[in-house]
Amino acid sequence: MKKKVVLAFSGGLDTSFCVKYLSEEKNLEVHTAIVQTGGFSEEELQHIEQQAIKLGSASHTCLDVTQKYYEQCLKYLVFGNVLRYNTYPLSVSAERVFQAMAIADYANQIGAQTIAHGSTGAGNDQIRFDMVFHIMVPNIEIITPIRDEKLSREDEIEYLKKKGIEQSWEKAKYSINKGIWGTSVGGVETLTSEAPLPEEAYPTQQSKDSSEKITLTFTEGELTGINGQPYAPVEAIQQLEKIAAPYGIGRDIHVGDTIIGIKGRVGFEAAAPMVIIKAHHTLEKHTLTKWQLYWKDQLANWYGMLVHEGQMLDPVMRNVETFLADTQKTVTGEVDVELAPYRFQVLGIRSPHDLMSSSFGAYGEMNNAWTGEDARGFAKILSNQTMIFSKVNKQND
Amino acid sequence: MKKKVVLAFSGGLDTSFCVKYLSEEKNLEVHTAIVQTGGFSEEELQHIEQQAIKLGSASHTCLDVTQKYYEQCLKYLVFGNVLRYNTYPLSVSAERVFQAMAIADYANQIGAQTIAHGSTGAGNDQIRFDMVFHIMVPNIEIITPIRDEKLSREDEIEYLKKKGIEQSWEKAKYSINKGIWGTSVGGVETLTSEAPLPEEAYPTQQSKDSSEKITLTFTEGELTGINGQPYAPVEAIQQLEKIAAPYGIGRDIHVGDTIIGIKGRVGFEAAAPMVIIKAHHTLEKHTLTKWQLYWKDQLANWYGMLVHEGQMLDPVMRNVETFLADTQKTVTGEVDVELAPYRFQVLGIRSPHDLMSSSFGAYGEMNNAWTGEDARGFAKILSNQTMIFSKVNKQND
Amino acid sequence: MKKKVVLAFSGGLDTSFCVKYLSEEKNLEVHTAIVQTGGFSEEELQHIEQQAIKLGSASHTCLDVTQKYYEQCLKYLVFGNVLRYNTYPLSVSAERVFQAMAIADYANQIGAQTIAHGSTGAGNDQIRFDMVFHIMVPNIEIITPIRDEKLSREDEIEYLKKKGIEQSWEKAKYSINKGIWGTSVGGVETLTSEAPLPEEAYPTQQSKDSSEKITLTFTEGELTGINGQPYAPVEAIQQLEKIAAPYGIGRDIHVGDTIIGIKGRVGFEAAAPMVIIKAHHTLEKHTLTKWQLYWKDQLANWYGMLVHEGQMLDPVMRNVETFLADTQKTVTGEVDVELAPYRFQVLGIRSPHDLMSSSFGAYGEMNNAWTGEDARGFAKILSNQTMIFSKVNKQND
Amino acid sequence: MKKKVVLAFSGGLDTSFCVKYLSEEKNLEVHTAIVQTGGFSEEELQHIEQQAIKLGSASHTCLDVTQKYYEQCLKYLVFGNVLRYNTYPLSVSAERVFQAMAIADYANQIGAQTIAHGSTGAGNDQIRFDMVFHIMVPNIEIITPIRDEKLSREDEIEYLKKKGIEQSWEKAKYSINKGIWGTSVGGVETLTSEAPLPEEAYPTQQSKDSSEKITLTFTEGELTGINGQPYAPVEAIQQLEKIAAPYGIGRDIHVGDTIIGIKGRVGFEAAAPMVIIKAHHTLEKHTLTKWQLYWKDQLANWYGMLVHEGQMLDPVMRNVETFLADTQKTVTGEVDVELAPYRFQVLGIRSPHDLMSSSFGAYGEMNNAWTGEDARGFAKILSNQTMIFSKVNKQND
Repeated sequence: MKKKVVLAFSGGLDTSFCVKYLSEEKNLEVHTAIVQTGGFSEEELQHIEQQAIKLGSASHTCLDVTQKYYEQCLKYLVFGNVLRYNTYPLSVSAERVFQAMAIADYANQIGAQTIAHGSTGAGNDQIRFDMVFHIMVPNIEIITPIRDEKLSREDEIEYLKKKGIEQSWEKAKYSINKGIWGTSVGGVETLTSEAPLPEEAYPTQQSKDSSEKITLTFTEGELTGINGQPYAPVEAIQQLEKIAAPYGIGRDIHVGDTIIGIKGRVGFEAAAPMVIIKAHHTLEKHTLTKWQLYWKDQLANWYGMLVHEGQMLDPVMRNVETFLADTQKTVTGEVDVELAPYRFQVLGIRSPHDLMSSSFGAYGEMNNAWTGEDARGFAKILSNQTMIFSKVNKQND
Repeated sequence: MKKKVVLAFSGGLDTSFCVKYLSEEKNLEVHTAIVQTGGFSEEELQHIEQQAIKLGSASHTCLDVTQKYYEQCLKYLVFGNVLRYNTYPLSVSAERVFQAMAIADYANQIGAQTIAHGSTGAGNDQIRFDMVFHIMVPNIEIITPIRDEKLSREDEIEYLKKKGIEQSWEKAKYSINKGIWGTSVGGVETLTSEAPLPEEAYPTQQSKDSSEKITLTFTEGELTGINGQPYAPVEAIQQLEKIAAPYGIGRDIHVGDTIIGIKGRVGFEAAAPMVIIKAHHTLEKHTLTKWQLYWKDQLANWYGMLVHEGQMLDPVMRNVETFLADTQKTVTGEVDVELAPYRFQVLGIRSPHDLMSSSFGAYGEMNNAWTGEDARGFAKILSNQTMIFSKVNKQND
Repeated sequence: MKKKVVLAFSGGLDTSFCVKYLSEEKNLEVHTAIVQTGGFSEEELQHIEQQAIKLGSASHTCLDVTQKYYEQCLKYLVFGNVLRYNTYPLSVSAERVFQAMAIADYANQIGAQTIAHGSTGAGNDQIRFDMVFHIMVPNIEIITPIRDEKLSREDEIEYLKKKGIEQSWEKAKYSINKGIWGTSVGGVETLTSEAPLPEEAYPTQQSKDSSEKITLTFTEGELTGINGQPYAPVEAIQQLEKIAAPYGIGRDIHVGDTIIGIKGRVGFEAAAPMVIIKAHHTLEKHTLTKWQLYWKDQLANWYGMLVHEGQMLDPVMRNVETFLADTQKTVTGEVDVELAPYRFQVLGIRSPHDLMSSSFGAYGEMNNAWTGEDARGFAKILSNQTMIFSKVNKQND
Repeated sequence: MKKKVVLAFSGGLDTSFCVKYLSEEKNLEVHTAIVQTGGFSEEELQHIEQQAIKLGSASHTCLDVTQKYYEQCLKYLVFGNVLRYNTYPLSVSAERVFQAMAIADYANQIGAQTIAHGSTGAGNDQIRFDMVFHIMVPNIEIITPIRDEKLSREDEIEYLKKKGIEQSWEKAKYSINKGIWGTSVGGVETLTSEAPLPEEAYPTQQSKDSSEKITLTFTEGELTGINGQPYAPVEAIQQLEKIAAPYGIGRDIHVGDTIIGIKGRVGFEAAAPMVIIKAHHTLEKHTLTKWQLYWKDQLANWYGMLVHEGQMLDPVMRNVETFLADTQKTVTGEVDVELAPYRFQVLGIRSPHDLMSSSFGAYGEMNNAWTGEDARGFAKILSNQTMIFSKVNKQND
């Protein structure tokens, strides 16, 4: 009996090659699986399935983990206002881990002895896939034909041709990775440091010209409504993307550190994530204390780094999620945002938990909550240590 | 012989009141001083001097500390990419401390027994002034008539009228604080949480309509050139402001925590600071290692908080500055930026220290620096601890 | 009708003075309350009650919050292995806040219009009491006769004598503050930096001479057994103190930063806390991942600082507690400790969650979990960034 | 002509095997080098040299980097009070990196094409050696016979016997690694979690029975004198070790995370490092501000982790060193320490920079630096945010 392999399958050249290679050269029963994390359309999924069947996959399945991905990761990226290097919403990084987890679960489920993925040896994805597999299914062998055989696109096309798979494999000018949390865009420009991506590289072209005011409702940190209409969070993200993307909002180029230690540069468009994070952050500035904001930042920054680096399964991540969730109890309210071509602006917020409530002293205005004497005493005591340090060390004498 | 008081004088109602009050009610010899940190025009300084003389100041002086302010603070705000709560370049906070320091030095120099400032008991500035004075000149008494007497604008106008000072004191609709590192804007809208500032509240109106590409040169972290033209850093900031401000770039509303524990909301425009910080940060992402970027963020965020809170003289600030300066040795290069109405975009960088150099493996591309086997071993070992944790605690069984 | 005041009463000179002063000079109905956080014996509590009655207190009560104090604070100090400045288990700081909270609740309960405490203006306790009262009962006025009137001990004794209270008030040579989490000791030596406390200053004299091995059982981070005998955590602490204190274990001198900015020096003995924390920490080193240990330290250090500084009610503290508790799921096991005169040593641990399980590669020993090739690849990839940095910046050429 | 290999040589079985193996199986010209970082006696060095010659090394050299090791690393471990997991002074970790650096420099100097080390594939040292070589001499090939061939001790002895090297290779019961910064001790007990090392495992037996008071002088953070006698820092460490080690001071067991992700357990004795660090830390508590202490801890903890993990060459380490050095300007003074069998105690300090100077308010005592009113105002303002949070969120109503 043939051994089973589960292959993470996207329908592209690399994984198409793997189907043939694994079944014919390695004599494995190839079970292809595509993982939906919100980025594929129905049409794309059907196309991928047909491609799998055409290549001779023993079975093909689509594992939809969109809701799980939101519940176990995206939610916390919002709670933490996570932007890697203050720029990138981790559009691709986060979903890779959930794809790998779904593949590992599926391999367990169908009793596969091996798992395969089509990553090369030069990027982050191989690390993300490998790590999840090592941790979740340490007894299942990992096969990575493209990485192991150092194959070029030409090698793969040649092989497939020999095996009777004649297909046009021309490489798109820009490599696009679409997910619910944003779309990454790579091209010749992003291989070096000098140039931006041209307008046409972005899959969503700017088509709305005027500006528009929208209202986002957050409930304990989660986006639960747009313009007064309630949505489940996943739908809310998708709905907001539809509204905001045509403005060309949320584009930028991320220069970051890859897991393997080299610098990587990638363009992205992520209208909904960028709007949600800035709106959510503004609501938090009104409703959380200074030290809550401080520690949220520390932990969320770290969380984003480990998500990016494929370390999602370290138990510290569960501890951080618990922390972040606990901070969101008062992050409920409405945020007004103005969308305009290529930019947006948070206008203001309304929340029953707003600490800027006018019943206390307004900043810079007269009030009854404390006196000038109180403030004078406060400043005096607060100066004590530095005053003493200065005197002892005679810095100002 | 009368005792001398040095009064931090801005020419506005509060400090005008103080001149009269201190000399007539407190029987002090009032020496007014205005501190230039880059925000006042020559014309404004002359007007302020005339006002001081008219009110009967015993002497008036302008203390220009712009260069010192840059060398001892702004430089580090750039090195650290400091934006308070990821938004606000500390336009006002930072300069207050340098104004206070200049006043303290001047009081020492002319042998004043007392120092006065016109702050109310409701804001941050009183704390910043008081703290610097307690630390630098602990033996000099601080007098704060407006805070101590809980005076309203009407009380002050009435008093000045009685003393023969008839002048129009009408309050501007928006309170503007202009400095080299940005201009803050307060108004009725910023007293509550709901509404943005209207277009007319911003002192610099958007007047440039097309877009423009500029090149910024950084030398060890400092802005030293624009479009190939070398400048001293202070001039470079001022020059960039002239170029970028007419685009309406760098506006936002900051919601923050005041030193006295309440939330404060303030609008600002800060074209040059926002462009410089984003350009500088991009250059750093190319030239610093991951952990350099990480620790710079930690320390710079703290530095910004203590600057904001008037703790500039804590010796830890000198230690942080030393750290930040030490990280800048390789932050040299050129950054291209596109300016457009209400927004800007970093296009790319060129640097001899760029770690994205093509002589090493480019991200996602084939290379000779390491093999697929190396990457496989890396992922395996990197998984070890979580794999063991999972097995021991049977999380995935 | 007289207004009611609740007075935090310890039976000492300061608070005894307050009873008379508040009732006779301020015409208040004085309700005294002592808060038990585990440090007072039954005998002491009776003595304090008699003293309150003798002074004319309208009512006296003992509020026992020991269990609450453990559940809401001490537990987390253990989870976090909190030692301020790596030395001091916060023996006094933590309990003050719970005493203040109990007083505030009681004042609310009996409808008091004012609260009084006997703190001077020179220490941390006034800040801890004031802050809790401002936050929990902002509408209740705080009265602090000793602080407000700047009274000396002599002034107080004189006043009490006049009021007919003749009692011997001689000051103990060493000021002792006993609590469940340790006993602080102040004396003439701790007012300056040079000298240690003499042996006789410590309330528990060393009386056990040989050494003894004990076994501590932890359940999800809490001490639940000693030498195989189960205990509720509060009892376990008290029981361990009985066993370990006669060894003279857990003594040291803490030099720290007070809330008011000056340095303070205090001796302490805290046998049970020191043994528990080191044993618990060792168990954690075996059962938590590197990043769990790292982030626990960060948050716990901060938690300790805010506990010390009376900021227990900041909501960030609840978030940190949630984090710490979440990390303890695997911190279950037994720890062997050897007690000896003036020192102790952790001998080893046994835990079903021990990550040092021999079924994986033992450190430095041959194993089957990974190969030398894996390790070689790991080291290579891990060097990438610094190798590139070095090459680009020609540091090693 | 034969290619040259530089072999890091210790004279033990593994590296002795390597000499023969590299010259006879790999046909290389073997140049052995031993790196002195303060742990070898003259006698040991001579013995190692004779062993190298006997095995047929083409040349043998001793590279003494003790002073460099102190200047570039140990100094900062003191400045940072670095104890890994609050326990371990990094006795072995730190010196490995300096040994690797010396070997890399030497290989460059003599024009070697390859470098060899005798590490197995199961520990930290292989990673430390490999990383330094990859970074400093990326073009020199690394050979690791023991790791690559998965050789057991028996295999090696067998091979050497065949090659005519008859020698007693019996394994010591405890593996000892002696360095200037402490001695690590491994044995059968440290392979599991339960048991301590027996008394006889420690190389320095306790031989002093009474107690002794010593005075340490620190100059800007460096140990520069003992009992009034000035020493250069390296000598001071060695001298203190002579005084303190016979007390059996500074022993403990470290349970830590290895670079390769498994837990490791190791005993150590480090009398001088433990005494120096605690004394230095106490001096800092008297002379640095709260935030200096806080940030030193953060950076030093990280520094220790990266030293441990072989990341010494990341440029962030240079930045951290700059920070740490900058904090030491006021860390000058004398510290009294009492040494006793198996324990020591810091007694007190004297420093011109002591912030506990009696000219300011002593903690808990009456003073003139501030009033009760000041403290009252301070507590009130400091409560503001949490008071507002409580009211808005009705937590205490």
